[in-house]
Amino acid sequence: MSPTSCQTAPPRDIWLGSRGRGAPKNAKYSGIFAALPGRQAAPWPVIGGRSPLLDWFGHEPFCHPLLRCCGQPIVRRVPAGDSRERDVCEHCGAVHYVNPRPVVGTIPVWEDTVLLCRRAIEPRYGKWTLPAGFMEVGETTREGALRETVEEARARVAIGPLFTMIDVPYIEQVHVFFRADLLDLQFAPGEESLEVRLFREPEIPWQELAFRTVAQTLRLFFADRARGEFGTHVQAIELPARLAQAGRP
Amino acid sequence: MSPTSCQTAPPRDIWLGSRGRGAPKNAKYSGIFAALPGRQAAPWPVIGGRSPLLDWFGHEPFCHPLLRCCGQPIVRRVPAGDSRERDVCEHCGAVHYVNPRPVVGTIPVWEDTVLLCRRAIEPRYGKWTLPAGFMEVGETTREGALRETVEEARARVAIGPLFTMIDVPYIEQVHVFFRADLLDLQFAPGEESLEVRLFREPEIPWQELAFRTVAQTLRLFFADRARGEFGTHVQAIELPARLAQAGRP
Repeated sequence: MSPTSCQTAPPRDIWLGSRGRGAPKNAKYSGIFAALPGRQAAPWPVIGGRSPLLDWFGHEPFCHPLLRCCGQPIVRRVPAGDSRERDVCEHCGAVHYVNPRPVVGTIPVWEDTVLLCRRAIEPRYGKWTLPAGFMEVGETTREGALRETVEEARARVAIGPLFTMIDVPYIEQVHVFFRADLLDLQFAPGEESLEVRLFREPEIPWQELAFRTVAQTLRLFFADRARGEFGTHVQAIELPARLAQAGRP
Repeated sequence: MSPTSCQTAPPRDIWLGSRGRGAPKNAKYSGIFAALPGRQAAPWPVIGGRSPLLDWFGHEPFCHPLLRCCGQPIVRRVPAGDSRERDVCEHCGAVHYVNPRPVVGTIPVWEDTVLLCRRAIEPRYGKWTLPAGFMEVGETTREGALRETVEEARARVAIGPLFTMIDVPYIEQVHVFFRADLLDLQFAPGEESLEVRLFREPEIPWQELAFRTVAQTLRLFFADRARGEFGTHVQAIELPARLAQAGRP
């Protein structure tokens, strides 16, 4: 089969899911997946052993990079020497691994207050969060946390010890927060924030926080502060269904 | 342009790089990248702002999933609302993010000894390592560390506190090690190990360790044990060139 002929199965189907940040601000999605107009939908492969429905976290439309590598269909099987199913291209031998992604951020502190940002982007538009975001290649966790603090809050901080590492397996993320001291009060909303302000503990908008890892990190922070000693906390946030499946309470 | 015609640019070029584990045990690569036989090589895109040469860590051949999504060429540009260049498909709007990958493992302890595994796979075939590997989707960091301990050393452990989180930005990884107590001595080499044994501190084969993060974790472990108090250590291992570029000593 000539690699330049039409018989090499030029991609005809697109998987529109959702992932990560950067979605068009006004984008609306009527469903989890859709075939591109005029293109034929295909059966969706299952990524990482879970249903593609679980990709509906975050709001980035993407055509799945695993569907095609060299233009041949991807097969779901256990590669030699491996123990779990992967997306494999039988044509060129490529194995397309999918791994969880680190999210890194800070807890910026000024006297008895903590800095929060009100999100100007989806998901959780208008909700409050600690400055945090996806770690980029080529940077360390601390560099990533600092970068996000500048991008979202235009805040200058001295970064401190690791405070929380919270697994969120059902969205394939690990959230890492460092304690940080604000160096001045010259913060301001970055492009991804509507508003940035300092909160004393009783003022924290608990019902208006964007993410469970942020709420958990803040709860642990105030608890540690109250007892006068800060630890490093490794925890996981799981869906009730997954806990039941794993036989855990 | 009809999406099913030959004019939709059926993929003609393949990027053979290297990534992760699972490479055929006898595979030999004469260079960093090669065009598939009978296919035309293309200029390589730069991933994550670094040279593709840096992909020569690990030994997994892969055809780059970012080169094509819906069959159109990928463009390197800053997407709307973003601040750095990404691989973007102008045809379907997909933004292909690349993020660092977590590696998770344990420091299995029995009395005054630590368990190490001698690798039966590339990279670092024949070198000694702590049990560790790429975190899988759907699991927590602790679950992944436990799984790797079973897979590589058939060892049953009670997992303990986070001990090291070491960034390795030049290979886009974050290595996470938990302290762990061996529950019995019924360990044995898994498929990825030639040999598994316990080492007292003076017996550690420092010159035969597989990875710098393993050596650093063991150094910190013995130092903390000597002073009678274990901490949580967040560090980075960097290439001298990168340190110089960042103006760091």
